[in-house]
Amino acid sequence: MIDLKNIHSPADIKGMSLDELTQLADALRAALLEKLSRNGGHAGPNLGFLEATIALHYVFNSPVDKIVFDVSHQTYVHKMLTGRMEAFLDPAKYKSVTGFTNPKESEHDFFTIGHTSTGVSLAGGLVKARDMMGGKENIIAVVGDGSLSGGEAFEGLDFGATLGTNFIVVVNDNDMSIAENHGGLYADLHLLRSTDGQAENNFFRSLGFAYRYVPYGNDLKSLIDIFEEVKDYPHPIVVHLNTQKGKGYAPAEAHKELFHFHSPFDLATGDPLHISESESYDDIFATHMLERMKKDKRIAVITAGTPGVLGFTPDRRREAGSQFIDVGIAEQEAVALASGMAKGGARPVFGVVSSFLQRAYDQLSQDVAINGNPMVLNIFYGSIAGMTDVTHLGWFDIPLVANIPGWVYLAPSCKQEYLSMLDWAINQTKYPVAVRVPNTMACDKELYIANYDDLNKNVVLHRGKRVAIFGAGSCLQVARDAAAILKSNGIDATVVNPRFLSGLDTELLEALKADHELVVTLEDGAIDGGYGEKIARYYGDSDMKVQCHGMSKEFLDRYSIPDVLKQCCLTPDTLALSVLKSLQ
Amino acid sequence: MIDLKNIHSPADIKGMSLDELTQLADALRAALLEKLSRNGGHAGPNLGFLEATIALHYVFNSPVDKIVFDVSHQTYVHKMLTGRMEAFLDPAKYKSVTGFTNPKESEHDFFTIGHTSTGVSLAGGLVKARDMMGGKENIIAVVGDGSLSGGEAFEGLDFGATLGTNFIVVVNDNDMSIAENHGGLYADLHLLRSTDGQAENNFFRSLGFAYRYVPYGNDLKSLIDIFEEVKDYPHPIVVHLNTQKGKGYAPAEAHKELFHFHSPFDLATGDPLHISESESYDDIFATHMLERMKKDKRIAVITAGTPGVLGFTPDRRREAGSQFIDVGIAEQEAVALASGMAKGGARPVFGVVSSFLQRAYDQLSQDVAINGNPMVLNIFYGSIAGMTDVTHLGWFDIPLVANIPGWVYLAPSCKQEYLSMLDWAINQTKYPVAVRVPNTMACDKELYIANYDDLNKNVVLHRGKRVAIFGAGSCLQVARDAAAILKSNGIDATVVNPRFLSGLDTELLEALKADHELVVTLEDGAIDGGYGEKIARYYGDSDMKVQCHGMSKEFLDRYSIPDVLKQCCLTPDTLALSVLKSLQ
Repeated sequence: MIDLKNIHSPADIKGMSLDELTQLADALRAALLEKLSRNGGHAGPNLGFLEATIALHYVFNSPVDKIVFDVSHQTYVHKMLTGRMEAFLDPAKYKSVTGFTNPKESEHDFFTIGHTSTGVSLAGGLVKARDMMGGKENIIAVVGDGSLSGGEAFEGLDFGATLGTNFIVVVNDNDMSIAENHGGLYADLHLLRSTDGQAENNFFRSLGFAYRYVPYGNDLKSLIDIFEEVKDYPHPIVVHLNTQKGKGYAPAEAHKELFHFHSPFDLATGDPLHISESESYDDIFATHMLERMKKDKRIAVITAGTPGVLGFTPDRRREAGSQFIDVGIAEQEAVALASGMAKGGARPVFGVVSSFLQRAYDQLSQDVAINGNPMVLNIFYGSIAGMTDVTHLGWFDIPLVANIPGWVYLAPSCKQEYLSMLDWAINQTKYPVAVRVPNTMACDKELYIANYDDLNKNVVLHRGKRVAIFGAGSCLQVARDAAAILKSNGIDATVVNPRFLSGLDTELLEALKADHELVVTLEDGAIDGGYGEKIARYYGDSDMKVQCHGMSKEFLDRYSIPDVLKQCCLTPDTLALSVLKSLQ
Repeated sequence: MIDLKNIHSPADIKGMSLDELTQLADALRAALLEKLSRNGGHAGPNLGFLEATIALHYVFNSPVDKIVFDVSHQTYVHKMLTGRMEAFLDPAKYKSVTGFTNPKESEHDFFTIGHTSTGVSLAGGLVKARDMMGGKENIIAVVGDGSLSGGEAFEGLDFGATLGTNFIVVVNDNDMSIAENHGGLYADLHLLRSTDGQAENNFFRSLGFAYRYVPYGNDLKSLIDIFEEVKDYPHPIVVHLNTQKGKGYAPAEAHKELFHFHSPFDLATGDPLHISESESYDDIFATHMLERMKKDKRIAVITAGTPGVLGFTPDRRREAGSQFIDVGIAEQEAVALASGMAKGGARPVFGVVSSFLQRAYDQLSQDVAINGNPMVLNIFYGSIAGMTDVTHLGWFDIPLVANIPGWVYLAPSCKQEYLSMLDWAINQTKYPVAVRVPNTMACDKELYIANYDDLNKNVVLHRGKRVAIFGAGSCLQVARDAAAILKSNGIDATVVNPRFLSGLDTELLEALKADHELVVTLEDGAIDGGYGEKIARYYGDSDMKVQCHGMSKEFLDRYSIPDVLKQCCLTPDTLALSVLKSLQ
């Protein structure tokens, strides 16, 4: 029996027989499932690419040969085979590795990757550099079928095909994105699978790649054979593997979307260990939009490959029918399509994760803002208290969206205000409007104002003096709580709900000059290029002092949310202290 | 003989015989050439798509049927046929239309478009909206072969193919981008052309489009026949036209890259009417990089389909050999490839137009900054005094790049400093570095400082008191000139060259508090999210007053540069006045 503790590097598997490799696969799968069930993680992708990872490390000579994993959420087995086994065997060390490749962890990892569709391009860069330096090593990019719908993946394949030297692109085709695939390309992949790779129309060949098809992408022998065959291949080549997502774990094989990423579960049944009873914004969004779509056939909800983020379960997708649109992992398309739809009289609402919206900056500017087409953006996880992986930070959407002329960017502070803003965004047709999903549910009737036609109008929740705290979105509650602390220190702070991130209420700002000496801005994101700086600039030429609080300019990875909020003065205590200091 | 003055709308050509249409084509071409030769413009694309434009308007019923032109620089003939003929016949009215489609000009224009690769996605949105509303009109996207290398075009095709209803994509294949095409896809287009559309591997069919090939894409009869055939086609279909760029004008047929866009020329010879004798940054960049590449084989220059912007003429491209890389119109690929190359030990320098860099925001963040790979960006036309078309504004690159943690963004103020910064960026390997090409040549020896290792260190050119002017990049000269005016008004202003747009010299900012009351920032771009706001925030909690000058938050189209600079206080007079007012 294989003892995984003895596997310290790929060298330790090179001499194994096929039998031993098969035992290795079983042992890896058991350990992987144990960790997945206790710790949660990307179950489906790792189970499905387990055999291929073994075969890659058996055949190629990493890290001299360089394997670049697109998205890199499928690299748990790669980590197990490259010196990080303990992080998968010892529960105390589960958190010692990230969920993605990470050059700081290992010389076998070349990039920190978390967004999809980037791997082929990055690996192409290694190919070009190798050729310039006269190197001879193999460069391998591993990319999933789901990632192929992203424009960067296409650009990487299209140019990569012209590099003309060794460049092995392993397409890990499990016939799934996070959910089902969308895009014409997937009919071609299906055709290739059903013809054993022989179909006339071959997307990869049409771009100039040589091509091999492997029908049994979870069969070690087939995988080793194909990798042996293409090793040192002197031209760009695609190896198309037909793999099974969730392979070897019945619940994951049966429920592929559910097990793409899963929180801790009962290993015997696949049932989740904890079921959250609390309300969540994915549910709120989906429920609300379904209701609106039923009443108004012009309304459509768009996702770019992450329907679950929007609360659109398979059942709800069926219910929404053609009013629910999944464009595949293709945010550029989602935004431009929405612009065209809005121009054509529909009311499209694109729901997107803050970090992934970054892929569509030019479309937000050119395709939407310059044209003034009134699409709606619903931005999830735009928060310091959102995802903490360095590749998924939700800090940058305020600078990204709010600085584009023409966009109205709204920051609701609670559920009630969120739904009010979302409805206004859909009902009006004058502007492109983005709504930033808050991270709190706290609900105040007084915040419910159904009309935002008076652009950039802030709401003063309490009019005090000396200091005014502008708490944008989720920060409003912090502003109120800090004001309470200040009150007990004899300071009657004004509390403002700015509502609009994309413009200033200059009338209010002027009025505050009369009896205020300090304005404090709070935003749940990066401070550089953000909301607060606009206030600082506005008051630059006056006597008003301004303090801006938000995330400082650095990338953090897997940080402690409470610690960071304290550092940013985005907790009531730290904020009150900072105000008191300034007023002394 | 056709009198073009009688053509007011597409209705005026519907009844014409093929003979008359041929005469119309001749008359349009003559008028077009006359305007092009006097006024300059996109010669090649419009000459090549002239017959197809006639045929589209002959067969389809615009604006009920909707034609969306990708990039839309090929729409001069479309404008001539849709009520804007005068702008092409009367030299006094040449400037009355923009160079791109523009809904403000005509109901036949659906979007303001200037960036490539967006048209299929936007048209796809019209298709989806039509189907939701129960419309029956034809939706036609016109896209050039060059645009197909852009990721958004792929996303648009891939998803568009699944729409399942009428969606006609006309591929205007003239076998050229601005320069020659790059990408594996182009071998497939070539194969399709050489097999009369019959080749097995068909990129478009692989995505699920029906497909028709038209070998004579400048033949009116062929074009009318094919458009008649595909009109009301109930499924997404690609009509692949083999057209000739520059058709019907020998110099443009012979020199396709030169005549893609051309300044006024002698109609008889094709020779330019004015040859600029002044030094230009494209030349400076190309000359310098060629020299460096010869000495160091690790260095490479990358373009995304605009080699001319970088000064890389065909001769220079040949000279640079494999060290010059054109990835096609694919900025995402250019940035990610450069990141991979830098990781692999090469020294890639991506030269890019400010406005087009917008397509690669996520790559700058994820593929580069998070990984810290030391690629070099050379940003052209990042200036208020650059391109003035609303789709090509160079105002947004400072907010875009400088707010990403990890990027060093340098703003040289003259040629000497530019080359010094460019060299430093290439020689160091610690950071990804962007260099913003200035719009002035003025050269001061004192500015030449060869080392920028001391990150964010500003240079004080003159130490005065009361007011300090920070003139970033091209604005430094404005700062100096304004300081001279202030001097004659009894104010001894400090003048600072900040050099770094991505961080502040806090030591200097602190020191200024001692004897300064006002800090003024000047930047050659958008003020929202830009450099000045960081200074305003820094001083927010102090007594220092701050004035930020730059472009206000709005989109302008074809503006007067001198007027706008005055409005922005970016001229010595207006700036000095603004300072004097504040100091009163």
